[in-house]
Amino acid sequence: MPSLKSLLESRRFEAVITVLIVVNAITIGLETVPAAMAQAGDLLVFLDRAVLTVFVVELLARFAVYRADFFRDPWRIFDLVVVGLSLVPATAGLSVFRALRILRVLRLIVVVPSLRRVVGGLVGALPGMGSIMVLLALIFYVFSVIATKLYGPSFPDWFGTIPASAYSLFQIMTLESWSMGIVRPVMEVYPLAWAFFVPFIICTTFTVLNLFIGIIVSAMQAEHEAEAVASRAELQNEQEVIIAELRAMRAEIAELAGKAGAGR
Amino acid sequence: MPSLKSLLESRRFEAVITVLIVVNAITIGLETVPAAMAQAGDLLVFLDRAVLTVFVVELLARFAVYRADFFRDPWRIFDLVVVGLSLVPATAGLSVFRALRILRVLRLIVVVPSLRRVVGGLVGALPGMGSIMVLLALIFYVFSVIATKLYGPSFPDWFGTIPASAYSLFQIMTLESWSMGIVRPVMEVYPLAWAFFVPFIICTTFTVLNLFIGIIVSAMQAEHEAEAVASRAELQNEQEVIIAELRAMRAEIAELAGKAGAGR
Amino acid sequence: MPSLKSLLESRRFEAVITVLIVVNAITIGLETVPAAMAQAGDLLVFLDRAVLTVFVVELLARFAVYRADFFRDPWRIFDLVVVGLSLVPATAGLSVFRALRILRVLRLIVVVPSLRRVVGGLVGALPGMGSIMVLLALIFYVFSVIATKLYGPSFPDWFGTIPASAYSLFQIMTLESWSMGIVRPVMEVYPLAWAFFVPFIICTTFTVLNLFIGIIVSAMQAEHEAEAVASRAELQNEQEVIIAELRAMRAEIAELAGKAGAGR
Amino acid sequence: MPSLKSLLESRRFEAVITVLIVVNAITIGLETVPAAMAQAGDLLVFLDRAVLTVFVVELLARFAVYRADFFRDPWRIFDLVVVGLSLVPATAGLSVFRALRILRVLRLIVVVPSLRRVVGGLVGALPGMGSIMVLLALIFYVFSVIATKLYGPSFPDWFGTIPASAYSLFQIMTLESWSMGIVRPVMEVYPLAWAFFVPFIICTTFTVLNLFIGIIVSAMQAEHEAEAVASRAELQNEQEVIIAELRAMRAEIAELAGKAGAGR
Repeated sequence: MPSLKSLLESRRFEAVITVLIVVNAITIGLETVPAAMAQAGDLLVFLDRAVLTVFVVELLARFAVYRADFFRDPWRIFDLVVVGLSLVPATAGLSVFRALRILRVLRLIVVVPSLRRVVGGLVGALPGMGSIMVLLALIFYVFSVIATKLYGPSFPDWFGTIPASAYSLFQIMTLESWSMGIVRPVMEVYPLAWAFFVPFIICTTFTVLNLFIGIIVSAMQAEHEAEAVASRAELQNEQEVIIAELRAMRAEIAELAGKAGAGR
Repeated sequence: MPSLKSLLESRRFEAVITVLIVVNAITIGLETVPAAMAQAGDLLVFLDRAVLTVFVVELLARFAVYRADFFRDPWRIFDLVVVGLSLVPATAGLSVFRALRILRVLRLIVVVPSLRRVVGGLVGALPGMGSIMVLLALIFYVFSVIATKLYGPSFPDWFGTIPASAYSLFQIMTLESWSMGIVRPVMEVYPLAWAFFVPFIICTTFTVLNLFIGIIVSAMQAEHEAEAVASRAELQNEQEVIIAELRAMRAEIAELAGKAGAGR
Repeated sequence: MPSLKSLLESRRFEAVITVLIVVNAITIGLETVPAAMAQAGDLLVFLDRAVLTVFVVELLARFAVYRADFFRDPWRIFDLVVVGLSLVPATAGLSVFRALRILRVLRLIVVVPSLRRVVGGLVGALPGMGSIMVLLALIFYVFSVIATKLYGPSFPDWFGTIPASAYSLFQIMTLESWSMGIVRPVMEVYPLAWAFFVPFIICTTFTVLNLFIGIIVSAMQAEHEAEAVASRAELQNEQEVIIAELRAMRAEIAELAGKAGAGR
Repeated sequence: MPSLKSLLESRRFEAVITVLIVVNAITIGLETVPAAMAQAGDLLVFLDRAVLTVFVVELLARFAVYRADFFRDPWRIFDLVVVGLSLVPATAGLSVFRALRILRVLRLIVVVPSLRRVVGGLVGALPGMGSIMVLLALIFYVFSVIATKLYGPSFPDWFGTIPASAYSLFQIMTLESWSMGIVRPVMEVYPLAWAFFVPFIICTTFTVLNLFIGIIVSAMQAEHEAEAVASRAELQNEQEVIIAELRAMRAEIAELAGKAGAGR
């Protein structure tokens, strides 16, 4: 089925899908406007279903073309998940899933090459940050357990369970109302609470900073290396010209020495 | 009209305009002080009108000089918009437009070269950030639609419409009162709301970080490249001296070989 | 005792300890869940004691093996402190120390090489920041004393003593509720308070920024230098080939000249 | 008076002054503790006066030694200002000036070389940021005037005068309670207020970011350039060896050609 494959990979088809995604984004947005729903509700719902049908047909066509290879490209899996989540509300009636229909719009990332490159870059920077993320998780777990044991009995809303503590500590890490909202009230019961929260803030801020520096350094290394390699290559080319020139000269001198020897 | 053009582009004329802008900035500022208006209100209004007249005459002169080329320089268009906005309150009586008269002071950016360079650099960094800004807009739109559908009915002030949700999410992205002010109240109705807002915070913070890294890297690349090119040029100059020397030597050896052959 | 030493340093032993730490982290976490304690409390406490026993035996074994060298490795001292803090609640009954048992989980940093490298890097960046940290401490001390003297009498909760002022200034430095929560109320009594707090914010933010830039620059220098050295080494290798070639040629020419002289 | 000059510039004298500053810092700090004042108040006041006397004598000695050159070194002017501010409360009785005595402790920055280098670096980075700081001041002035005109009548506490608006906008720039505390209340009266404040936040954040990037880039350039120069110098040294070798060879070949010509 070579014609179907070339159709799916053609520029024109990509453009059609892009337009459909943008139209769908607008119709889903308009569905939240009561006036728009009163005037053109049926049209909006029809357009939404029509676009979804096109997406499902497109996915089935890709299945037919790529078969087992379909799951090799993470972007196609992303497409599948996003369109799959959109199909759930059609069968089940959960309002939460109805809201997730808009995730379909994220297909734009897959279809527009420059967006795909940006997101690919962002996701590609994650594995190099693995160790620091494990460290951050470890710090969060340790501090959550201590906070739950120390402050849980007096402040059950903030530190009653480990997940509640982890959420409160995330809030504190983002520095949102950490002092006036959380630590000052806690310090009225436990006056030494600052000795727990201030080191936590410094530790996590410093760790997150290091995470960010890591990304900056690796992003710059990648760009810089390419440039340095090009610059070095140019210098090496000239050096190789010099070496070739020298070798040729040595050969000529050797020949000259042979002549001189023969001429004697 | 060469004399008018050279006048408009002269250093002295630039200095006069700069002084007028600064004087105007002070008079507009003084108009907000009731005591100053009571004592010298007429003078302040007269000065303001006088400066505006000079600016309009200057713009007309530039029109006369550059004609169609006037719109080729984005800075002249900026001047036109800023002075144009100042003229509106003279005709219409809207107080909002009266407040916009101060925008005239932004002409300082056009007139002072070092400010023009800084703003030009800031604006020049924007196009390279296009894809990331589209991605950020997409994230905002998707999360705004979901927030409107999920939390709109219970929290109409914060998430009642898509623009209201977008504003609330912008506030959450800046980490202002995101937890104590918004997410904790929402979690009292929808206990799983953290699963929506925490990923949003991480996503947008990470994306904005990447935007900033992009600017840092590109700003440094520009400076670094110039330096690397200069350094390489120096090394290449010496290499070219070496190559020239070698070629000269080969010629001499060839000549020597010819003599040796002839001498035999 | 060479067999014990090789056992302690073996990969397999490291893996066993890693698993024990993770199991212990989970059991300590489960102890905060009332339902889990009601069902399997005895098992959880038993597991906790068993793991602690293993850790103590391991530490004693390391003592026996390394003796005086034990204290040369900062990681072993870290292990000792962390396990030592865990032993306190077994003897004394303080609930604070019971909460610190979870610190044992931080042994994971010592055992997992990639975590050890990250934390080592973070701690290694601290000494280079010494001067800036002294400067920051000096700024904090000076501003705390002034705040205590000026605002202490009217706002004893925030600025009553030097430590209270230092805590409030730390909160202000993190920008948490600095204006609405602290400075605006203070300005109602002392209208010029902004002239104290705004410079403080700018000073400390700028100093902390410089601290961060210092880390970024030094982290990048380290990576960059390695790359530059490699690039230079390659160019130098080729230059040495050129020099060797030239020296060989000179020797041949000298020989040729000798022959020419002898042939005359 | 060479002996006095060498005394003032000696290591030992520097150490004595450093110790005096630290002692003075502690005594001024202790004066804020009521219990310490009750027990040893006279001693603390005596120590403070004694140290101040030493500082004044030291400054007079420096005047005598350097005379007109005294004002050439900005650090000596800093010393003079800081000690001068400490003398005011001895004559006038203002409590504000009494609090400023602690500024004397900042002499530590002048005396300790590593602190002097750090502060010198921080201050040295400022002039390069001149244009961006002028731009930031311009943005603040323009937005303050507009805010005063538009929102001053309804919110006199926040936007009643230009200085009040500038303070509120500084708070908004630091993102402290900008939405819940200021913009949401303003939007209840002026629903379009977001169109004023959100661009302000984006503009100033972006400008401050650029300021910071500027410092980062220039700090890194300085370090990087030194390294690049060293690396280039090494490569050039070898190239010069090559060129010298080549010139020597040409001379030998010329000599050889001469011999060959003569030998014919």
